[in-house]
Amino acid sequence: MKRFLAIIVLFVAVLTQGYSQRKIVNLPDLPGFITLKCDFHSHTVFSDGNVWPTVRLGEAYRDGLDAIAITDHIEYQPKKDQIPTDHNAGYNLIKEMAKEYNIIPVHGTEITRSMPPGHLNALFITDANALVKDSVYDVIETAVKQGAFIQWNHPGWKSQEPDGIPKLYNIHRRFLKNGWIHGIEFFNDSEYYPNILEWCQEYKLAVMANSDIHGIISERYKEPEYTNRPMTLVFAKEKSEAGLKEALFAGRTLAYFGDMLAGKEEFARPFFYQCITVGPKYHETSKNYYFDITNHSDIPFYLVNGPKGAPTSITLNARSVTRVVLSKAFKGTLTYDVKNVLIGTDKTMKAEIKF
Amino acid sequence: MKRFLAIIVLFVAVLTQGYSQRKIVNLPDLPGFITLKCDFHSHTVFSDGNVWPTVRLGEAYRDGLDAIAITDHIEYQPKKDQIPTDHNAGYNLIKEMAKEYNIIPVHGTEITRSMPPGHLNALFITDANALVKDSVYDVIETAVKQGAFIQWNHPGWKSQEPDGIPKLYNIHRRFLKNGWIHGIEFFNDSEYYPNILEWCQEYKLAVMANSDIHGIISERYKEPEYTNRPMTLVFAKEKSEAGLKEALFAGRTLAYFGDMLAGKEEFARPFFYQCITVGPKYHETSKNYYFDITNHSDIPFYLVNGPKGAPTSITLNARSVTRVVLSKAFKGTLTYDVKNVLIGTDKTMKAEIKF
Amino acid sequence: MKRFLAIIVLFVAVLTQGYSQRKIVNLPDLPGFITLKCDFHSHTVFSDGNVWPTVRLGEAYRDGLDAIAITDHIEYQPKKDQIPTDHNAGYNLIKEMAKEYNIIPVHGTEITRSMPPGHLNALFITDANALVKDSVYDVIETAVKQGAFIQWNHPGWKSQEPDGIPKLYNIHRRFLKNGWIHGIEFFNDSEYYPNILEWCQEYKLAVMANSDIHGIISERYKEPEYTNRPMTLVFAKEKSEAGLKEALFAGRTLAYFGDMLAGKEEFARPFFYQCITVGPKYHETSKNYYFDITNHSDIPFYLVNGPKGAPTSITLNARSVTRVVLSKAFKGTLTYDVKNVLIGTDKTMKAEIKF
Amino acid sequence: MKRFLAIIVLFVAVLTQGYSQRKIVNLPDLPGFITLKCDFHSHTVFSDGNVWPTVRLGEAYRDGLDAIAITDHIEYQPKKDQIPTDHNAGYNLIKEMAKEYNIIPVHGTEITRSMPPGHLNALFITDANALVKDSVYDVIETAVKQGAFIQWNHPGWKSQEPDGIPKLYNIHRRFLKNGWIHGIEFFNDSEYYPNILEWCQEYKLAVMANSDIHGIISERYKEPEYTNRPMTLVFAKEKSEAGLKEALFAGRTLAYFGDMLAGKEEFARPFFYQCITVGPKYHETSKNYYFDITNHSDIPFYLVNGPKGAPTSITLNARSVTRVVLSKAFKGTLTYDVKNVLIGTDKTMKAEIKF
Repeated sequence: MKRFLAIIVLFVAVLTQGYSQRKIVNLPDLPGFITLKCDFHSHTVFSDGNVWPTVRLGEAYRDGLDAIAITDHIEYQPKKDQIPTDHNAGYNLIKEMAKEYNIIPVHGTEITRSMPPGHLNALFITDANALVKDSVYDVIETAVKQGAFIQWNHPGWKSQEPDGIPKLYNIHRRFLKNGWIHGIEFFNDSEYYPNILEWCQEYKLAVMANSDIHGIISERYKEPEYTNRPMTLVFAKEKSEAGLKEALFAGRTLAYFGDMLAGKEEFARPFFYQCITVGPKYHETSKNYYFDITNHSDIPFYLVNGPKGAPTSITLNARSVTRVVLSKAFKGTLTYDVKNVLIGTDKTMKAEIKF
Repeated sequence: MKRFLAIIVLFVAVLTQGYSQRKIVNLPDLPGFITLKCDFHSHTVFSDGNVWPTVRLGEAYRDGLDAIAITDHIEYQPKKDQIPTDHNAGYNLIKEMAKEYNIIPVHGTEITRSMPPGHLNALFITDANALVKDSVYDVIETAVKQGAFIQWNHPGWKSQEPDGIPKLYNIHRRFLKNGWIHGIEFFNDSEYYPNILEWCQEYKLAVMANSDIHGIISERYKEPEYTNRPMTLVFAKEKSEAGLKEALFAGRTLAYFGDMLAGKEEFARPFFYQCITVGPKYHETSKNYYFDITNHSDIPFYLVNGPKGAPTSITLNARSVTRVVLSKAFKGTLTYDVKNVLIGTDKTMKAEIKF
Repeated sequence: MKRFLAIIVLFVAVLTQGYSQRKIVNLPDLPGFITLKCDFHSHTVFSDGNVWPTVRLGEAYRDGLDAIAITDHIEYQPKKDQIPTDHNAGYNLIKEMAKEYNIIPVHGTEITRSMPPGHLNALFITDANALVKDSVYDVIETAVKQGAFIQWNHPGWKSQEPDGIPKLYNIHRRFLKNGWIHGIEFFNDSEYYPNILEWCQEYKLAVMANSDIHGIISERYKEPEYTNRPMTLVFAKEKSEAGLKEALFAGRTLAYFGDMLAGKEEFARPFFYQCITVGPKYHETSKNYYFDITNHSDIPFYLVNGPKGAPTSITLNARSVTRVVLSKAFKGTLTYDVKNVLIGTDKTMKAEIKF
Repeated sequence: MKRFLAIIVLFVAVLTQGYSQRKIVNLPDLPGFITLKCDFHSHTVFSDGNVWPTVRLGEAYRDGLDAIAITDHIEYQPKKDQIPTDHNAGYNLIKEMAKEYNIIPVHGTEITRSMPPGHLNALFITDANALVKDSVYDVIETAVKQGAFIQWNHPGWKSQEPDGIPKLYNIHRRFLKNGWIHGIEFFNDSEYYPNILEWCQEYKLAVMANSDIHGIISERYKEPEYTNRPMTLVFAKEKSEAGLKEALFAGRTLAYFGDMLAGKEEFARPFFYQCITVGPKYHETSKNYYFDITNHSDIPFYLVNGPKGAPTSITLNARSVTRVVLSKAFKGTLTYDVKNVLIGTDKTMKAEIKF
C-alpha cells in the first residue's frame, strides 16, 4: 500500500504549495479594536471560478487575511455538466482546514440577479441550498432568517449599470427599510463606487472592499501594478466569527485597495493617525526646522494642497520615513488634504501634521 | 435576459484573465527543425490538481509553450465525491479552445502505480477511460494500441525510490523490449535524474522535462528563484500534432529547466552554438584582444575549466553580451566545460569558442 | 611592493564593478543602416555631476549604448575648490578605455547660458578649454570651427522657460541661419518638448534624447518606473566616430525614452515595421480569424482608434506576442494610431496592420 | 543673473535625487539600548572611489543608516593628477549636510599598508592630514592620541593573506597590548572572517560589518542577490556621536549582512529574541498543536537540527509569519541551531522556541 501513502504525501504538498509562509500586513489596530483583514467575495469551480476552494484558503493565509468567504453563484453554474451543483460545497471543503490556518471561514453565497437588485452576497448563512428560489425577495428573506449579513456587490458594474454609477432602485429602498442590506462594496476588484459612501453613512452600512476573484489572486494582484489585494478592514472586539459579525453589523469597516482607503471619517481619521509618527524635529538652522514623518503602514499617503509657506505636497511612502524641511517663517497649522483617503463622493480627508 | 449576457461576458474575462499576452521564449531552432516548447505532465481538479483545465491552457499561452498535456491520475481521484470521474474530461475541455491559442493539446493521462513501474504518462491516446484496468501491463498494451507515447515519470521520486536514483526493474526492461517506453523525465519539476541520460542514449528514448504541476504555474516558478518553467524542447519538422509526435518518437528532444539543459550531445551541441555569437574582435592592444560573446538565449551558460593563459571561466548571462579580454600570449584553443549542459550522468558538454 | 600590486587589483575591480555584462537592447536596424544607441548629455565631478567619468563609461557598456558624450558645464564649476578646472578632463579620462569597451567616446561640453540661447552641447570638439569666452556667439563659432555638432539642450526647461514650451528666439534663428544648430533635445531626462519636431523637420535637424544625468543612471532609471534610459537612436552607415558624425549631421535619428518614440516620420515608420511581425493567421472559425502580432522590440506599441468592427485598441507589449481575434465580418483595412510614436507636435503615427 | 539661480536649483535637485525617502530598517533595539545602523568604511573620489562624498550621505539616508564614515586611503591617491590631496576633504564636505539628514558623520581615514598590519581605519579622528607618516606605528599612535577608534579592515583579504584566513602578527599583538585596536571587520563587503570572533571575545573588541564601497551602493547590493548593505549594529545609550563612540569602545556591536548575523552571544541572543514572537497556539486537534512564529525583522532565521519528533527545521522568513504544526506526542524542548547566527568560528547560536 506504499503507493497510496506516497500519493497522500503528494497531495498535502500540493495543498500547501507556496502557502507555508504568511505575509505581515502592516495595518494598525484602532484603540479598543483589532483590525481584521477580510475578503468577502470569491469564486471557485463550484460556479464560474477556476480553482478548488482550498486554493482560496491558501491564498488568504499567505496574504495575511483573517477571514474569507467563498461566494459561488447560486443562479450560474457553468460547470454543472462536470460538477453536480451543491451550493454548500465550497464552505464545507474549507471549514475544518481553516482552523488549522487561523482563518475565519465565512459561509456565503452570491445571489446573482439582473439589476435591480443586481448581485448580493449573503454571508454567515447556514444553508446556501435553501436560497434556491424564484423570487429574490424570498431569497433575501430566507437568508436574513438564517442570520445573514447582506452585501450589495459591485453596485455600479457596467454590465448592469452602463454609466458605472450605482443607483438606489425601489427594491433596494425596500430592502434597506427592512434592514436587509448591511454593507455595500466600495471596491470590487479594481472598480470603485464613491457615491455609496453617503448611503453607508445614511443607512449605517459597512463599506466593503473585496476581490470577487475568479482566477488566481497572485496573478491578478501583482507588483508593480498592485502590492496588495482588496481588503475589507473590520474593526472587531476580538478575532472570532462572533467578533467579526458584530463589527460588520455595526458598520465598523474601511475599504482598502491599491493605494486607496475609503469609508466613514470616524474610522478613517484615527486609522490614518495610527499609521504615522511625526517628528520630533532633529535639527534646526537659522532658516529651517528638520523633522521626519514615519509611515509604518503599507498604504502610502499623498498629502496635497499644503498651506502657503509650507511644502505644497508631501508623499509619505509606505513603510518609509519622509524628511520634511519647514521654513521657520511658516506660522500656521500644517493642514493637508490626504488625496487617497476618501470619506465621501467628492470628499477627501483633511489631516493636520503636528511635529 | 440581460443578466445572462452579462454573466457570459464575465466568464470570458475570467478565462483569459492575465493570458492575453504571450512571452517570447528565446530559444533557437536547430537547422532543419523548429523547436517546440512543451509540458507533457500536468494536473487539474479532475484528479489531485487544484485548477480547472482551461487554466493550464492559459498558462501555456502566456508562457510561450507550443504543446501541453493534461495528465490526470487514472487511479487517484480524491475529488470524486464532488466531481464524478471522467478521465477524458480534461482533454475534452481544452481541445477546441487550444486551436484558438495556437497550442497543440495532447490527449494524455497518468498511470499511477507503485514502483515498479511507478508512474507513467500515456500521451497521444484516444480514450483514457479505456485505461482503467487492474494489470499495468494490460494498461500499457492498450495505450500503445491507441498509438501512445509512453513516458516514465519522475523515475527517482523519493516517495517511491528512497535513494532518489532511478533504477531499471524487470518490468521496465520488459516494457523497453516491447518498445513500450518512449521517453523518461530528466526533470520533473525541480527534481532531476542524471543517470537516465545513458538509458535514453542506449534505448533511443526522448529526454523529457515537465512541470507535473498541481497548483499554479506562476506561483511555483517565479523570479528570482526561477525565470522559466520546465520544458521539453522538441525538434520537429513542423508545428503540428503529427510533427510533434514524429519528433518525440524519434527522440529529438532536450530537457530544459532553470539554468540547466540536458540531453543527447547530438542535440545539445548544435543548440548551444545556435544560442551564441562570438566576436569578431573589436579592439587590440599590444597585450590583449578584445571581443564580445553574445548569448541570445534565455539560458545562461557557465564556461569553466578554461585553458591556461585564458580566462578560467566565462559566464554568458542570458540575453546578454559578455566582454572577453584575451592575452595575445595565449596560443591554444579556447575550450571550456559548459557546466550547466549535461550530456551524461557525470558528463558536461565541452565547447570551443572561436573568435 | 606587494601592497601596491594588491591595490591595483582592487582598483581594476572597482572600475568594472557591475559593468562586465552588457544588456542586449532590442531595437532593430533600418535597411541599409545600423542603429547606434547614444547618450550625448552627461555630467561628472568635473562640473556638477557626482561621479568619476569612468562610471559613465561603465554605465554605457552595461546599458548597451554605442556612444556617449560627457558634457560638463563650461560656465558652472561648483567643485573647483577641490578639482581645478580642466574642461577636457572628462573626455581624456575615458578616451582610451572606451576602445576596450567598444564604445565611441564623443568629445563634448555644455555651454551653459541663460535663455536665450539657453544651454547647448558642442559635440565632436577638439578642445573644450578653447570655448571659455564671454560671447556665446564667439563660443559657438569656435566650436563649429572645431567641427562641432551643436545640440540645443532642454529647450523648454522650466527654470529658463517658465511655461515649459520651447521658443525660437532671434539668437536661435541667427544660429540656424548660420548652420550652427544641428540637433535639439526632444527628451531631456523625462521631460519632452513636442513642438521641436516641426523645427527639426523644417531646419533638417536631428531629434535627440539624452539623460543629462548628474547622479547614477541605474538609480534614476529603474524598474518598475523605467525600463530604459533615454537614447538617441542614430541610423549610421557604420559603427565608428565618422559614421556616427555623418548620420547625426544628416539628421537620421529618433528619440527614445520610456515607452515613447519621437522623430521624423521617414524614420519612425520603417522603424516600427522592423519592430513587429504580423501573422499569418493560424486558425479560423466560421466567425473569426486568429493571428499573432509579435513585437520583437523593447518598446511597447499602443494601437488605438481602430476601425469599426475590428478591435478598438491593441497593445503590443515589448518582447511579446499579442493574439488578435478578428471578426470575419470586418472588411476594411486595419489602420490604427500608434499612440506612443510622435511625428509632430500633436501628431501620432498611423500604421496599417496587414496579416 | 537668472541663469545662476536656475543652476542652483538644478544642483540641489541633483544632490537629493533618489534620496528624499528613507527606508525603515526592521531591526529591534535591545533593552536599554537603541540600535544604530552604521557603515564605517567607504571611499570617494578623494582616493580610489568613484563618487562625490555627498553621494555617500544620500545613500546612507535612503538606506536607513544612522552613522557613516568616509575613509579614503591615506597612501593611495590615484586621482591626484586631477584632485590635489586633502585627506579631510571627504569629511568636511558632508559634515554640515549630515545634520540635515540626521546622520552622524564620523571623521575617518584608511591607513593603507601591506600585511602586516594591513589596512586599518582610524575613526573619530580630528585631522587625517596629520596621519601622513612613514611608520605605521607612528600613524596609529597619532590617531589614538586624536581619540581614534582603530578598526582592522578585511583581515583575511586574499590580496594580502592568500589563504583568506586572518592571522595575528606580532605587530597586531603589540597594537592590541597597547590598546590600539578596538574593532575588527567580520564582514567587509560580502567577505567574512569567522575566526576573528574569538579575538573580539578575548580582547574585548567590537565586531564590525562594513561595505568598503568604492562604486555605487545600490548597484553593489541589489535584489534579488542582496536585500541590504553590510551594517555594523551598534547598541548605544543614545543616538549621538558620543553615544556611538561609547558603545563602540565598549564593544556592543553585531555584524549584519545578507542573511547573516555575527558577534558575541551576549548581544546575538537577546537580539534574536527581540526579532521574533512565538505563539500562542491558536488551534489544537487530537494530534497536533498549531501556532505561529512571527519574525518582525529584516533578517530571516534558519532553525535547523530540531529535536526528534518536532519539525527538523523551521525557516522564519524576514517580516513573515511561519505556521508551526507540532505533534502532541512531542514532549521535549524545542531547541534549534540558528544556522545563520554565528557566535564563534564554528559555532552557531542555539535557541529555544517556547510557545
